[in-house]
Amino acid sequence: MRHFEVEMNDLKIRLMDMGRLVQDMIKTTIDGLAKRDSKLSDAVFCLEKEVNIQEIVVDDKCLKLIALNQPVGSDLRFLTSAMKINSDLERMGDEAVNISERAIDLLKYPELKPLIDIPKMSDIVQQMVTDSIKAFNANDVELAKAVLVKDDEVDELKNRVFSDLKDYMVKSSDFETIQRAVDLIFIAKSIERIGDHATNISEDVIFMVHGKDVRHPRTCPASPDEEKSV
Amino acid sequence: MRHFEVEMNDLKIRLMDMGRLVQDMIKTTIDGLAKRDSKLSDAVFCLEKEVNIQEIVVDDKCLKLIALNQPVGSDLRFLTSAMKINSDLERMGDEAVNISERAIDLLKYPELKPLIDIPKMSDIVQQMVTDSIKAFNANDVELAKAVLVKDDEVDELKNRVFSDLKDYMVKSSDFETIQRAVDLIFIAKSIERIGDHATNISEDVIFMVHGKDVRHPRTCPASPDEEKSV
Repeated sequence: MRHFEVEMNDLKIRLMDMGRLVQDMIKTTIDGLAKRDSKLSDAVFCLEKEVNIQEIVVDDKCLKLIALNQPVGSDLRFLTSAMKINSDLERMGDEAVNISERAIDLLKYPELKPLIDIPKMSDIVQQMVTDSIKAFNANDVELAKAVLVKDDEVDELKNRVFSDLKDYMVKSSDFETIQRAVDLIFIAKSIERIGDHATNISEDVIFMVHGKDVRHPRTCPASPDEEKSV
Repeated sequence: MRHFEVEMNDLKIRLMDMGRLVQDMIKTTIDGLAKRDSKLSDAVFCLEKEVNIQEIVVDDKCLKLIALNQPVGSDLRFLTSAMKINSDLERMGDEAVNISERAIDLLKYPELKPLIDIPKMSDIVQQMVTDSIKAFNANDVELAKAVLVKDDEVDELKNRVFSDLKDYMVKSSDFETIQRAVDLIFIAKSIERIGDHATNISEDVIFMVHGKDVRHPRTCPASPDEEKSV
């Protein structure tokens, strides 16, 4: 194998490792929330430090590979996509940290209720993350497209979660209920955002493989009220 | 001027145009919110379409410039930073759209109160956006660093906004108050995120000029891989 190919392969392995780390963060943060276990939430903060280091290392590696090998075509697309995927993985990690912070805050109060549709939402989003990383590893455009489709399902669940939480707040407006509901609203929002990043990664995979930019498919058909949330 | 320089200059002009467009979106969305003017909020949806198109054009231009000219050093850093700045500008636009959607929802109800500290927060964030774009245009590292410092101020204001809104909800828990408070919580969150993107752009400017990665400054001080540069 040529030196360049060895290096490209190494980069892919690093990104896959980072993907696993981030998947671990997401699983741990959701477990910490569901089991009300602060040790799990704390573990997420440690994992974030590792992801932050990897982000800088991967970016540096991509830049050096471009500078030293002057790739074109699919190799160049792989490298610029790798930089974007790297950034999306790091931001998923940030959202996992946000969830853990809220989960720790929630420990101050008794449980609100079995978390409404949040576990269901997080199951779908975790699958989106797994599939987007798998699609990147296998250059699997069909799997990447399947991730994009799930976005609407997550949006719908998020709206239901918001609506349920607002009902709670209207029914009982003591400080504890309001605080817990606000925490859960932000947790649902963070889970949705993790799904958005999985969508971004899937779009990058499609671009990487086909050289076709599939972002903003609905750019133009003039519909401002599209996909409004509650 | 060499053809490459002409093209690089053209790319910079395009990004600056995109920056102005996004600044316009942010200003318009905040005006729409403050003046309760749905025409202004609607205008933001139109501007977003333009930003989305520009994002794809700029990315494509960056890739072609790398592929055809095989730049190294500061030229390569400029091009990969341009791709990141491009993405941050587009995401700022997304947040402006989110604010407009909430502003339109708020029109259904009487005004909650003069928006607490949201106008103050948005003034600081708009200045951060302006300065980050200016810093990019002038390769001004000092101005970029000044943007990074403002992040804490925004965080503090956001926390005060959240706390005020929770007080409202505790005091009066009718559906209208809860809905308006939730809308305003999300608006404050979006404004904070716009500030985060201005911070990202400023970090990119510092990297572009000095080749020094200043992200995650508090990540594991003992790490050998930190602050690597190309």
